[in-house]
Amino acid sequence: MRKNVALLGATGAMGQRFVQMLDSHPYFDLRLLISSSRHAGMKYSHVHWLLGDEIPEYVRDMQVESFEPNLFEKEDIDIVFSALPGDVARDIEGLLRERNYAIFSNASAYRMEEDVPIVIPEVNGEHMRLVHLQKERYGGFIVTNSNCSTSGLVLALAPLQRWKLEEVIVSTYQAISGAGYPGVAAMDINANVVPFIKNEEEKIMRETRKILGTYKQEGIEMHPAKVTASCVRVPVRDGHLESVVVRLDKDFEISDIKKAMREFKGISGLPTAPFRPIIVREEENRPQPVLDAYAGHGRSRGMSISVGRFTKINSYLRFFLLVHNTIRGGAGNAILNAEYAVSNGYI
Amino acid sequence: MRKNVALLGATGAMGQRFVQMLDSHPYFDLRLLISSSRHAGMKYSHVHWLLGDEIPEYVRDMQVESFEPNLFEKEDIDIVFSALPGDVARDIEGLLRERNYAIFSNASAYRMEEDVPIVIPEVNGEHMRLVHLQKERYGGFIVTNSNCSTSGLVLALAPLQRWKLEEVIVSTYQAISGAGYPGVAAMDINANVVPFIKNEEEKIMRETRKILGTYKQEGIEMHPAKVTASCVRVPVRDGHLESVVVRLDKDFEISDIKKAMREFKGISGLPTAPFRPIIVREEENRPQPVLDAYAGHGRSRGMSISVGRFTKINSYLRFFLLVHNTIRGGAGNAILNAEYAVSNGYI
Amino acid sequence: MRKNVALLGATGAMGQRFVQMLDSHPYFDLRLLISSSRHAGMKYSHVHWLLGDEIPEYVRDMQVESFEPNLFEKEDIDIVFSALPGDVARDIEGLLRERNYAIFSNASAYRMEEDVPIVIPEVNGEHMRLVHLQKERYGGFIVTNSNCSTSGLVLALAPLQRWKLEEVIVSTYQAISGAGYPGVAAMDINANVVPFIKNEEEKIMRETRKILGTYKQEGIEMHPAKVTASCVRVPVRDGHLESVVVRLDKDFEISDIKKAMREFKGISGLPTAPFRPIIVREEENRPQPVLDAYAGHGRSRGMSISVGRFTKINSYLRFFLLVHNTIRGGAGNAILNAEYAVSNGYI
Amino acid sequence: MRKNVALLGATGAMGQRFVQMLDSHPYFDLRLLISSSRHAGMKYSHVHWLLGDEIPEYVRDMQVESFEPNLFEKEDIDIVFSALPGDVARDIEGLLRERNYAIFSNASAYRMEEDVPIVIPEVNGEHMRLVHLQKERYGGFIVTNSNCSTSGLVLALAPLQRWKLEEVIVSTYQAISGAGYPGVAAMDINANVVPFIKNEEEKIMRETRKILGTYKQEGIEMHPAKVTASCVRVPVRDGHLESVVVRLDKDFEISDIKKAMREFKGISGLPTAPFRPIIVREEENRPQPVLDAYAGHGRSRGMSISVGRFTKINSYLRFFLLVHNTIRGGAGNAILNAEYAVSNGYI
Repeated sequence: MRKNVALLGATGAMGQRFVQMLDSHPYFDLRLLISSSRHAGMKYSHVHWLLGDEIPEYVRDMQVESFEPNLFEKEDIDIVFSALPGDVARDIEGLLRERNYAIFSNASAYRMEEDVPIVIPEVNGEHMRLVHLQKERYGGFIVTNSNCSTSGLVLALAPLQRWKLEEVIVSTYQAISGAGYPGVAAMDINANVVPFIKNEEEKIMRETRKILGTYKQEGIEMHPAKVTASCVRVPVRDGHLESVVVRLDKDFEISDIKKAMREFKGISGLPTAPFRPIIVREEENRPQPVLDAYAGHGRSRGMSISVGRFTKINSYLRFFLLVHNTIRGGAGNAILNAEYAVSNGYI
Repeated sequence: MRKNVALLGATGAMGQRFVQMLDSHPYFDLRLLISSSRHAGMKYSHVHWLLGDEIPEYVRDMQVESFEPNLFEKEDIDIVFSALPGDVARDIEGLLRERNYAIFSNASAYRMEEDVPIVIPEVNGEHMRLVHLQKERYGGFIVTNSNCSTSGLVLALAPLQRWKLEEVIVSTYQAISGAGYPGVAAMDINANVVPFIKNEEEKIMRETRKILGTYKQEGIEMHPAKVTASCVRVPVRDGHLESVVVRLDKDFEISDIKKAMREFKGISGLPTAPFRPIIVREEENRPQPVLDAYAGHGRSRGMSISVGRFTKINSYLRFFLLVHNTIRGGAGNAILNAEYAVSNGYI
Repeated sequence: MRKNVALLGATGAMGQRFVQMLDSHPYFDLRLLISSSRHAGMKYSHVHWLLGDEIPEYVRDMQVESFEPNLFEKEDIDIVFSALPGDVARDIEGLLRERNYAIFSNASAYRMEEDVPIVIPEVNGEHMRLVHLQKERYGGFIVTNSNCSTSGLVLALAPLQRWKLEEVIVSTYQAISGAGYPGVAAMDINANVVPFIKNEEEKIMRETRKILGTYKQEGIEMHPAKVTASCVRVPVRDGHLESVVVRLDKDFEISDIKKAMREFKGISGLPTAPFRPIIVREEENRPQPVLDAYAGHGRSRGMSISVGRFTKINSYLRFFLLVHNTIRGGAGNAILNAEYAVSNGYI
Repeated sequence: MRKNVALLGATGAMGQRFVQMLDSHPYFDLRLLISSSRHAGMKYSHVHWLLGDEIPEYVRDMQVESFEPNLFEKEDIDIVFSALPGDVARDIEGLLRERNYAIFSNASAYRMEEDVPIVIPEVNGEHMRLVHLQKERYGGFIVTNSNCSTSGLVLALAPLQRWKLEEVIVSTYQAISGAGYPGVAAMDINANVVPFIKNEEEKIMRETRKILGTYKQEGIEMHPAKVTASCVRVPVRDGHLESVVVRLDKDFEISDIKKAMREFKGISGLPTAPFRPIIVREEENRPQPVLDAYAGHGRSRGMSISVGRFTKINSYLRFFLLVHNTIRGGAGNAILNAEYAVSNGYI
């Protein structure tokens, strides 16, 4: 059942997170590290490493390659992970899909295509059935991550659906790692907060409705809830905090909401899947990025979101959530999608 | 027309801001510096100064005193500014009111009393008429500031009233200076954000409705708008950012909203009153604490709020605002209230 | 060979690090959590936890006790770890020493006593022989950690001794966790650096010379090197950086210096001892707190120091080092001392 | 006596500081804003402004031009300020010197040329006599600033010369604004310190000796003192802190050192010259960037350095200094040099 995998965008901040999480992976062997041509030929040990600890041993002596489809054949690649920036993702991912590869992408290029699913397995694993449609049309397929803030939001919203979700108003507190490297200039964010992240609000508003939407044979029917997002960068390294105000059609008790979140089920048996996708904090001042970003254990560290400060105000449900933006909101979720696809026979 | 003033809580972070803003004030002579007994007898030049620049020359050799009502008579005090912490404010401010003093307080102790107004002069100067009621009852009177986040919020909401304000959903990004000194521990906030500030959400929700409410002879009738607040501390020195989602009863154009804000009038002729209380920013990434907290000039530096990123989403009006939390949201507003009271004959 | 251990100062920032590092320890069973009386009776799960991840399971239901010597007998304690603040450490540690306990302390109270060793096992394990002298005099004994900055410094200086160390000039960049909790006020250190840490420079100057000194039967003969220290607090969470300028009597090559550091030997067989106590970085911009503080693996994570940027200037050796101030510079070193004492028969 | 001035590198972080400090300057009229071709044609009001407050009114409607020597003639330029990056400065400054302009540059390109002086007027104003040599050789002349850290260091060292300076060992804590914009990536410096600034240590070591050197007709004879520098970036916005260890040949008392610093004379009569170039702080924890970077008043705000924490250790003099890196260490010093040149007849 082992699969050979390639990684696009291997030297950037998100690429490094993939490299770290694929270390000793029980399903996947990372065989190909692709980056822009200016890094081509470099040993991976020379990457400007951003993640603490050491560059994993298994990858230090591998050589970074520039994109060349033949390499994928030569290395007998089954699965492609993409940490490409949005602008170059469209062409490369499209080309590889035509060549029958299964692509799990963190890029936004294909997210809103009608036959491409945005998947958080615990929330909308069945959307992955769109893969069949893509296979017919192109040979291979693309499954995307959502935008990093959205991934945490939909995990928290999923268990609320039994109360019939009508509206979501969210304000974000987003970590700098979300902007990649070099990303945000220190002069802009040092002891400062910046109420602007390009296209982020739009992404949250449409991706949330797609992920929570209903699978139809020809695509996803958007969820009818109204979503209003305001996005702010804050001087935090990892972990997006979100203040969430939700209007539910049915009346609710806070205790039932917390119970539903606590009992929200993970996907059992997948290496990167957390046992509890949602951790409910009872302290008055949690979740916090420094303390909660890496919630979870072992291979699923950073894959659980943390929620807290539930209250009913003006008949709204109000709470805060925290999601690790480059793990659950990035590399980790793409890897989990691939595990899910393998174990469910899509690959 | 010059008045002798005393300052309660003179050595704390907020007290220092009062001292700085009263330097060479055209109406007020600071004659009495009151602090807790452990600072009594100390020269003001030995204070642990937090504001940059030097401790103002005029105050360096003054001696800090512990609270003693006779001192107020001896120094022939007309006006008392209070930067006391909430817990001690109630007794001391109440006692001074009984002794006929005019008190302009930043403390929360009396804010929700029915005969005490919370005043932002540009917004609800007429609420100061409650002063007459207090004079009858106690001899003197108390006029309070709002909580620091509220002061910026109501300034931005005031010009929106012509569209009939129905609802406000606000998330805050609050600077550490709002917690005084020593206040927030560095271990809690360094490269972190903390979704909890004790009692802050409650204060915003009720004070906003009181300030925007209607003056009646016996007290203020609360504004009917629903207010939902979520408060977060961020590692910024000065300046609270707020994301604001507003539901208006009447239809609106963004251009008209911005025009109304731009044209919102200051109070002419008062030393600390800004010419333009609201500065509308057109850049895509403003307002920001580091760049905009000190908007304004000369004596009214930090007294204007800055707003930006106006958009219509799901028929809501969404924008961001920034307020200097210890100037407009603290010492500056109290001083402006006192100037307003003097120039309108309340003192 | 298992030992029952007690922890003094269990609820503070350093105490929490002890709790974390004693989880599943192969030698030590934590039986007693002592804190000031205001925490007494509290379950440990209610501590204001500062370290990320969860409070370890094994300790959540234990009750915090106030200091009471009888408890130590009741729990059959062999070893006492002390994370007490300096001012209370003197009495309590002294009393427990009289009652025959083996105390491994992070407090400064006894460090400069002539019969008390400051031990970094890889550097001066043989100084622990002073334990015999103490046992004769008091029944039990105290072995102390050095100050947190000193621990990293002496580890880096130890392998330089073959070139005959004559002088050390060090400037520090110290993390906020070094001041405990609440410790440094955010208002003082947010986007700031503060060139003052009470008594720190004095501690570095004398403790370095004691640790590098020579064991004599009646005490330690101080090393003759001159040490000049300048200490600064920086807004970093964990990890003290130090710029070090060293004058060596013998001529040296940078390559030999690095080789000596790389080959500097750990103590084999102890659970908390790192295989390589000194990690030599070749990158032009390392070591850095965010990337290198937790150097090491498993139980010895944070026990290795990292060094880099070696150069010869004006015939000095110049380099930088980074030490995790609450692990190697705190709890971790005390635990390693206890392991060393057990395995060498001092207990 | 008014002069027309041009500014090279007008849109960058340092260029902005020049623009701010030249507002309403009593000698200089800013007539020409030069930047790279990608900004050419842009109104200055569209610059990504980094300094807080507003872009000064006088410059908002001016158009940014790309470099074109004819523009300098057309605008009748007398003096050129250069905030160019090092790599392009060499050609452009050289060309303008050939065309007889007086250039005051912050760039490093010409600093170590034998006929080009690095000038801090209070320290080595007489080095400006090298201007005559340049005029003979090229027509115009270049006077440079030192590197930003050096400017503060030599100001503090100048009054120590009467004790015969033998050696200086300095460690820096450098603000992010020193790297320009975008400059340092937030991912590198957020809650971190980085012990590497390219070429900075070398610059401090040689420029210090040149500025403190002796004027000879053919160039500057380097001062014989040994200088050892270690440079670190810290997450501070403005203001470089430096820990300084000095060996003096003559014996000294701390009180005399402080007196010499306090009495160190400014240059009277120049608009940007501070009355006291060195401010001696007596507090135990000063100087600090947040509190002291802007020491000084009016037009010379940020032009004074602050020093403190004097002590004698191992017969060294140890103290800390703080210098505003983009004012005294940048734009401000270049403007002061130009004022000095005008008032001393070099122009």
